[in-house]
Amino acid sequence: MSPDEARARLEALAFDDVAAGVLFEHFHAAERSGREGHGFRRVEWLETWTELRPAARPRCVVSEPGFERWDGNGALGYLVLDAVVQAQLAAPPEHGRLVVCDDTFPTGMLGYWVRRLAEAGLVGMLTATSPPRLGHPDGGPKLTGTNPLAIAVPSSDGAPVVADVSMGNLTYGDVLAGRAHEDELAPFGGEQAHKAFALAVGLQLFVDALTPSRGYGAVLVVARPEADPVPSFRDLAASVRLPGDR
Amino acid sequence: MSPDEARARLEALAFDDVAAGVLFEHFHAAERSGREGHGFRRVEWLETWTELRPAARPRCVVSEPGFERWDGNGALGYLVLDAVVQAQLAAPPEHGRLVVCDDTFPTGMLGYWVRRLAEAGLVGMLTATSPPRLGHPDGGPKLTGTNPLAIAVPSSDGAPVVADVSMGNLTYGDVLAGRAHEDELAPFGGEQAHKAFALAVGLQLFVDALTPSRGYGAVLVVARPEADPVPSFRDLAASVRLPGDR
Repeated sequence: MSPDEARARLEALAFDDVAAGVLFEHFHAAERSGREGHGFRRVEWLETWTELRPAARPRCVVSEPGFERWDGNGALGYLVLDAVVQAQLAAPPEHGRLVVCDDTFPTGMLGYWVRRLAEAGLVGMLTATSPPRLGHPDGGPKLTGTNPLAIAVPSSDGAPVVADVSMGNLTYGDVLAGRAHEDELAPFGGEQAHKAFALAVGLQLFVDALTPSRGYGAVLVVARPEADPVPSFRDLAASVRLPGDR
Repeated sequence: MSPDEARARLEALAFDDVAAGVLFEHFHAAERSGREGHGFRRVEWLETWTELRPAARPRCVVSEPGFERWDGNGALGYLVLDAVVQAQLAAPPEHGRLVVCDDTFPTGMLGYWVRRLAEAGLVGMLTATSPPRLGHPDGGPKLTGTNPLAIAVPSSDGAPVVADVSMGNLTYGDVLAGRAHEDELAPFGGEQAHKAFALAVGLQLFVDALTPSRGYGAVLVVARPEADPVPSFRDLAASVRLPGDR
């Protein structure tokens, strides 16, 4: 699917200009960074939704200096996280803030959202749940989403470090792309896959405990940095490629 | 080392009764849960420290409803985290709080600290840095600590779920115990060890960016739950062992 076609098909789904732009930019960034599973093929996927509500928009329901809760309110998770990121940039925390996003799905590439925070000088850590696709490596029912954890740290050298790690050994995007079968999706780590499973369970229950709606959700920690560790870390790393480097 | 001997040797290091008790309880819990690397052999390790300051105690230097910063102030990290946990239990956040612990090392089993929060009904997520022991799986310098991430979620059934995952393929305790050589310490995950490496880098820089002292540190998210997801998750998991189950 070409960028132009993707954009046109999003508008055909009745998203307004602004919302279609938010979705398009996310999918386009995914394509450009080689994560096509989060790219334009998601437009096709959205076209299969029977309960898509293109006009729905998230609401901020609790707003305190160190805490916010948002309710997706029927909007796509992409639009919730875009609104949340914009709100943090407009009014950054003095020190730090926990932002809980209830009823928030799908959330796409989490690194994309925290990278925007880090490019504006804020530290971000974000996780999100999704349909159960990972079970214990020894077997049993699917218990958790792939539950990525993304962390972005700004740098005075202009290049934030952005780690974005799913607990799965492959992405659901790979499944959507036909490159893998859903049954192959398992916690990453081979002989130590119990570790990724434990992280997936911890992140799942962490989000579930903070979101009263019992749907999928996301939790963001956003903070103002007190130090600038990235330049000296890059020096130490020398030629080692760091997470999120392009 | 017997429990009695460990306790006596801690007091011989000039920790007062309360501090020796905090350290003893931590090491004892590690022994009982089979994580001997964090157990009594740490007393021997502390005996080798040339700059141990048994009388030092942490200070809370910023205290707001949604944010705290603590300064270890020369105290052992165990004592910092004990004080932080006690402070959260004495004055839990209305919704959520970010707690940054600067100059905080060593921190032991992170699951121990968040379990105490969850046993009192609070959700906790905790990470901490330590000396550089993990490099990129393809080689290069040691760049990050083993940087565990621990998450504890309370349950109305009385049994919290506690995930506590180090990004290393073995523990530094294993090295101290002579069961492994330090050179074998690497990110866990085999063919996908780049994922654990990315998490270790993200957590390292996250903590480093929030702690101005440039030493080791810890960052805790503590929150009041809005839902009780553990009982139904346990039902779904059936006979699957969940993280932190004893």
